[in-house]
Amino acid sequence: MSELFDPVLAAGPVREETGDAAWLKGMLDFEAALASAQADVGLIGREHADAIGAACRPADYEVAELGRAATGIGNPAGPLVRALTDRVGGEAARHVHRGATSQDVVDTAAMLVATRSLAPLLADLGACADAAARLAEEHAATVQVGRTLLQHATPVTFGLTAAGWLTALGNAGERLAALRLPAQLGGATGTLASLGEHGPAVLIALSARLGLAEPVLPWHTDRTPVAELAGALGEAAGAVAGVARAIVLLAQTDVGEVHEQGPPGSGGSSTMPHKRNPVAAVSALASAKQAPGLVADLLAAMEQEHQRAAGAWHSEWRPLTELLRTTGSAVHWLRTSLERLHVDAEAMRANLDRSGGVLLTERVTTELAAETGRLAAHDAVTACCRRALAGEGELTDLLAEDPLVGERLSRERIAELLDPSGYLGSAGVFVERALAAHQERKERS
Amino acid sequence: MSELFDPVLAAGPVREETGDAAWLKGMLDFEAALASAQADVGLIGREHADAIGAACRPADYEVAELGRAATGIGNPAGPLVRALTDRVGGEAARHVHRGATSQDVVDTAAMLVATRSLAPLLADLGACADAAARLAEEHAATVQVGRTLLQHATPVTFGLTAAGWLTALGNAGERLAALRLPAQLGGATGTLASLGEHGPAVLIALSARLGLAEPVLPWHTDRTPVAELAGALGEAAGAVAGVARAIVLLAQTDVGEVHEQGPPGSGGSSTMPHKRNPVAAVSALASAKQAPGLVADLLAAMEQEHQRAAGAWHSEWRPLTELLRTTGSAVHWLRTSLERLHVDAEAMRANLDRSGGVLLTERVTTELAAETGRLAAHDAVTACCRRALAGEGELTDLLAEDPLVGERLSRERIAELLDPSGYLGSAGVFVERALAAHQERKERS
Amino acid sequence: MSELFDPVLAAGPVREETGDAAWLKGMLDFEAALASAQADVGLIGREHADAIGAACRPADYEVAELGRAATGIGNPAGPLVRALTDRVGGEAARHVHRGATSQDVVDTAAMLVATRSLAPLLADLGACADAAARLAEEHAATVQVGRTLLQHATPVTFGLTAAGWLTALGNAGERLAALRLPAQLGGATGTLASLGEHGPAVLIALSARLGLAEPVLPWHTDRTPVAELAGALGEAAGAVAGVARAIVLLAQTDVGEVHEQGPPGSGGSSTMPHKRNPVAAVSALASAKQAPGLVADLLAAMEQEHQRAAGAWHSEWRPLTELLRTTGSAVHWLRTSLERLHVDAEAMRANLDRSGGVLLTERVTTELAAETGRLAAHDAVTACCRRALAGEGELTDLLAEDPLVGERLSRERIAELLDPSGYLGSAGVFVERALAAHQERKERS
Amino acid sequence: MSELFDPVLAAGPVREETGDAAWLKGMLDFEAALASAQADVGLIGREHADAIGAACRPADYEVAELGRAATGIGNPAGPLVRALTDRVGGEAARHVHRGATSQDVVDTAAMLVATRSLAPLLADLGACADAAARLAEEHAATVQVGRTLLQHATPVTFGLTAAGWLTALGNAGERLAALRLPAQLGGATGTLASLGEHGPAVLIALSARLGLAEPVLPWHTDRTPVAELAGALGEAAGAVAGVARAIVLLAQTDVGEVHEQGPPGSGGSSTMPHKRNPVAAVSALASAKQAPGLVADLLAAMEQEHQRAAGAWHSEWRPLTELLRTTGSAVHWLRTSLERLHVDAEAMRANLDRSGGVLLTERVTTELAAETGRLAAHDAVTACCRRALAGEGELTDLLAEDPLVGERLSRERIAELLDPSGYLGSAGVFVERALAAHQERKERS
Repeated sequence: MSELFDPVLAAGPVREETGDAAWLKGMLDFEAALASAQADVGLIGREHADAIGAACRPADYEVAELGRAATGIGNPAGPLVRALTDRVGGEAARHVHRGATSQDVVDTAAMLVATRSLAPLLADLGACADAAARLAEEHAATVQVGRTLLQHATPVTFGLTAAGWLTALGNAGERLAALRLPAQLGGATGTLASLGEHGPAVLIALSARLGLAEPVLPWHTDRTPVAELAGALGEAAGAVAGVARAIVLLAQTDVGEVHEQGPPGSGGSSTMPHKRNPVAAVSALASAKQAPGLVADLLAAMEQEHQRAAGAWHSEWRPLTELLRTTGSAVHWLRTSLERLHVDAEAMRANLDRSGGVLLTERVTTELAAETGRLAAHDAVTACCRRALAGEGELTDLLAEDPLVGERLSRERIAELLDPSGYLGSAGVFVERALAAHQERKERS
Repeated sequence: MSELFDPVLAAGPVREETGDAAWLKGMLDFEAALASAQADVGLIGREHADAIGAACRPADYEVAELGRAATGIGNPAGPLVRALTDRVGGEAARHVHRGATSQDVVDTAAMLVATRSLAPLLADLGACADAAARLAEEHAATVQVGRTLLQHATPVTFGLTAAGWLTALGNAGERLAALRLPAQLGGATGTLASLGEHGPAVLIALSARLGLAEPVLPWHTDRTPVAELAGALGEAAGAVAGVARAIVLLAQTDVGEVHEQGPPGSGGSSTMPHKRNPVAAVSALASAKQAPGLVADLLAAMEQEHQRAAGAWHSEWRPLTELLRTTGSAVHWLRTSLERLHVDAEAMRANLDRSGGVLLTERVTTELAAETGRLAAHDAVTACCRRALAGEGELTDLLAEDPLVGERLSRERIAELLDPSGYLGSAGVFVERALAAHQERKERS
Repeated sequence: MSELFDPVLAAGPVREETGDAAWLKGMLDFEAALASAQADVGLIGREHADAIGAACRPADYEVAELGRAATGIGNPAGPLVRALTDRVGGEAARHVHRGATSQDVVDTAAMLVATRSLAPLLADLGACADAAARLAEEHAATVQVGRTLLQHATPVTFGLTAAGWLTALGNAGERLAALRLPAQLGGATGTLASLGEHGPAVLIALSARLGLAEPVLPWHTDRTPVAELAGALGEAAGAVAGVARAIVLLAQTDVGEVHEQGPPGSGGSSTMPHKRNPVAAVSALASAKQAPGLVADLLAAMEQEHQRAAGAWHSEWRPLTELLRTTGSAVHWLRTSLERLHVDAEAMRANLDRSGGVLLTERVTTELAAETGRLAAHDAVTACCRRALAGEGELTDLLAEDPLVGERLSRERIAELLDPSGYLGSAGVFVERALAAHQERKERS
Repeated sequence: MSELFDPVLAAGPVREETGDAAWLKGMLDFEAALASAQADVGLIGREHADAIGAACRPADYEVAELGRAATGIGNPAGPLVRALTDRVGGEAARHVHRGATSQDVVDTAAMLVATRSLAPLLADLGACADAAARLAEEHAATVQVGRTLLQHATPVTFGLTAAGWLTALGNAGERLAALRLPAQLGGATGTLASLGEHGPAVLIALSARLGLAEPVLPWHTDRTPVAELAGALGEAAGAVAGVARAIVLLAQTDVGEVHEQGPPGSGGSSTMPHKRNPVAAVSALASAKQAPGLVADLLAAMEQEHQRAAGAWHSEWRPLTELLRTTGSAVHWLRTSLERLHVDAEAMRANLDRSGGVLLTERVTTELAAETGRLAAHDAVTACCRRALAGEGELTDLLAEDPLVGERLSRERIAELLDPSGYLGSAGVFVERALAAHQERKERS
């Protein structure tokens, strides 16, 4: 948490859901649900569970104090349990945290924090997809120069470009939405020994109460749930980075095909008032770029020892929190960017025209080749291209005047072949397919 | 590929499936299937497709030559297409690679290479899970000291330990098995313009012929399929690392609870003939540890420009190949380790006895507390523990002789409470749950 | 910043030096020094510089407000300059931030934050090295079993083990201490155009005033200074991880050669009062393990565009801050662990004796080989080893009774050869070399 | 090694220096030097050392066979020592590998491979710096639009841009050139016990013979030398990525300020003959982008156990090899790109003119402000800018016609203020400083 940097690097609702207060709430929710679950299976009296639940109000605990006390055993669950026990008092106090170990508290809190962060993150991601869908639909017929290796290439539509964004964001969202994060309960060594034979029943009731998945057995050192979460977040951040990179490039002064129309003051430069920095896309990139290393740290931390690990487990808390925040920030900024995005169809057309028909000469070559053979056609057409690029005339004219070409193709046919809007292939169908897939996803969820 | 290091670091069948020959085959399979798909939809004559298919024999191409020629355009597909076109000759030659771009070839080949690598990788992973299941079943009643932060803790069974391994490996396998990798076909800029209106139909037929998933639209710069593959491999490598780490620790001379019984010569040391290095688990760790950075590189490479990227795409080939190989190697070595694993139940019992009943004194405290109050019970028991650890006598005796304890609990009851096999909680049920989940997974697949 | 987790994961003095207040101070120090530097070269009146300097009191600014306003342009320097200008007022206000751009402020602040963090970090690292040196010296003659691949091997001294730690920590410290981080000043595009011809003079004066290195030219998109810092921090974290891993392993209940003697309450377990978790070493590991991914993110962010980057630059702030904090925390916890470390020389001797003379039989073989040939010697000795390991007798006795061995070596000579303290090679010299290098480093610094 | 991908992804001389043959040679060089060193200190006869040295011809060993045999103990040194011993035969055979352990062989070979790779890598990097220096010098007066966040900003010179590249490459080269990699020799557990008291003398002689640094003590589990190498390579790769990214962006069709003039066939596109892909810069980026994850893996592998590690050590070989290769490839491709680079000064001027005087209006504002006050000046100038950008006229005209501006500044003065070549600040001095630093570096080395 940084009040200085978070508004840029941890923008949006996930910041709140991953703060100290959210972790504290997650830990207390665990303790309350654990007591309730034990009452559910008849292990303790309902009145004790209620007393414990009543004491699980985050406001009654001092996070900084718990943190300071955490250095004794290396995690904040211990001090919290002590404070909770004190607060509950009486006979009910004996049932606080019963059967559980510190890692049960922190792991379950982590899964709650993640689940609660994913809700607004997925809402932002859905809004991104919706915005991309709108752009795809609106600009299904807006021609744009295709760019490969950052060189002009055969034309596309901006609708197709946006449909590609939609699909990437949709894939990432689908994977995140499919996550079912488990509760954790195993006691000191995963046997739940102090619950006697009631362990599995309590685990099942606890999971149900918290809305988390029920694990097959305690996963203290099986970190596949964390890895799956990390991988899905890394994928989402990467999808955002791809779209944000495209926006930043299209917004270059030298390209000028899109710009962000933000509120007054955003994207400006103090010294250069004419600038229109795509600050939302830039911030999305800045956030998304921090994900890969965090994923690597979490994957490396999967090597955990025996029943509970010495360090690798503790090393997860910060990267997991940061990964949620930075991915949430990336998604939030991308939503802002897409919702601010102003598309300049005329600039797109103008850029396309700068490379002119040169991009489409393969069509002329193909049409000629049947009659003249491929090589002769290619040579004639290439020569005209070179002259056009050298400024010796309009390509259509040069081709019409070329003996080999002009003899076989009319000026009109040449113009037709060089018209980008006639060479868009399946762009339209692909846009429709992407929109249909998006619609289907929304209906399913 | 390194003939020197691969037997250790790229062990098992995935090495072969990711070599130059496999990539070449993937690229040629794409070209053959593309031609066939175009015949399927009536775009070219079947005889041309057959002619092209007949020329797609890997043995007819020289990998090194293709590689050398790749520097001109920055990828090996271009030279291959040229060589294939030459080989096909005649009219059919005009239909080679029709409508496609280099990235279509290489991306589809990558997905074929990955799919073909995952088959033996999943077989090895399944064998790991089976071996873990066998250990879990056989040792469901073998008591072992639990270890948290590498300190002795309350007892477990080795069956439960193995059931934890089984679950982690099963989760990782499930995720890998669920991957459906897509074919790639988009032409220069993703419109399939030169296929006219036939683009989608060809894409569908191509995907079906190759047994790959049909994408919604070309994914030239939407790298979510690569990210999903990378994440799942990283998770699998991490799961292997966790199990291999446990084996290496249990095989410490100071612990001696398991060892690998390999063929003569494996795990030995030239200078120290008595050593029994767990060489398979060590090699599994060595392989698995290389995954996180490769995943990070692939996630970072998701930031790709416009219609086709300038560098980020090319940067995927090696990390993807290496990630498949190192994960495959990790899984293969773990299988070897698990199949070699000799479990020494007596050593487990002896180690448990070293910490003795001290681990179980919380049971005595709990039983006493009802009568004496928690604090008094705790103090009395702790004092006995200290004396036992200081060598002043057997813990059972010391407790029986203690006035507060001995008055309330018989020697027999004390011994019963301190017997680890009576304090295993739900270990047995958890083993059963893990075995049932494993069985169910096998039946589903 | 997390009040809940920082005491464990951001322990020690670096936390404070990297907080919002430290960044704010760094930014204000830049503005004050910039004004002073301009007065130094006669560009503005000294009274204006003084007025600006007087307004650069961190306490007068509200971090949260600056952070919120940062979203407009994507960094907090803009809002700060505005607030500072307001506060300065009058004619001097016209000279605030003169010639500079936002990145000049933030980059210079980053280098100040780093430099100020490195001071206490290096002090902690120096204390680690001193502690390791003490252990190396005190235990230069304490025999310990060597362990390779976690198997017992030929003996070492614990002094040598500690000398290895000392050397790794010393190398890491030397590299960090050698860093000379530069000031940043380039204006909008690195030309310092609005300073006319005074740019370089101001840059030189600014660097001198801040105690930072003078760069050859502005390094807005040359991130080698950040990479060098990141690499050195990553190396330090890795060195800590190596030592902490060793401590955690030596502290295993199954090994028991060291333990941390912390204050009451540290390292305990609520449920298992006999446990002595090496909580400081565990926390050091937990902190150190987070470094590699952060380094990767910072290296990947070196790909920055043109004069100033769109996202990659912004993506540095958090990973750089976190890398300083997590490395600082790792070093601080390791210092704590080493200063708490209790070495149990008797346990070391006992563990060594468990593997007994078996480790040293190569000496017997060597001595015999001259007379009997290597193979015969090896076979005879190995047979005795096997019998000893199988519990058929003491190795010395078995060897003395063996016809081939006993005939050629006296019981005394056999015992001498099997005595670990007679087979320590250059352990002592290596300890001396390490101590001398440490001493030399201290004298140099 | 991949014959298919290496020409693109492992271009240049480092590939050869990191192949199996290079590793084999490194290992044999160790064995030869070890024997010679032992003769140097009188431990073995010179004739034995010579016999061993004579048998250390790489051509006499079969890499694939050594690799296959490596699976028994987990590294290829064991099989090599066996093969070497057989080849030496006779009495000398007894002195092969004397006192050493497998890790001594492989670690020393790694440092030799790295040192031998760095020589050509540094030569390529030096050539990159020379090329950048030439560009900086030639284009010291070539004006170019500055770009921040990919938006046009105040003007620079292309010479300054190139001087920034020069400085980054120079920093990276300096750090790599400063590396002094150590030899490794410690025997089984780092005591060199079987060399008696001669250990340090042999270590010193060995280091000298191999031209490697002499370590203070064996560094089997102190991996700071590997980390330092990895960090320096990661920094170099990042520096390359920055320059290559700039080239790719300047080569965009939409920008067209530079292009690579490669040999016929390079950078072309089969389907689009007019394209001029900057294939060398793209390949440099592709190679450089793979470094960060490899560095992370090597840093994470620093956590090694006790005297010699179980897996982490083995996990270094491939990432280290790949990091050398991918960095070498990045540098080699960048050299190619820079040497091919054609700079289009006219295009630079034309792009600058597109944004026209708008970039320089702050100069007008500043000049006016003294008379009119800053706010009034700013408002008047901004209004003219808006009109100019909206196409209502030339900015100079609009300003001259504006009442507030025109009254105070002549048309000539306005034109002067808006002339980019008059607003380059210290660009020239910075270029000179960069060139001087480059020259100094060359003289030093």
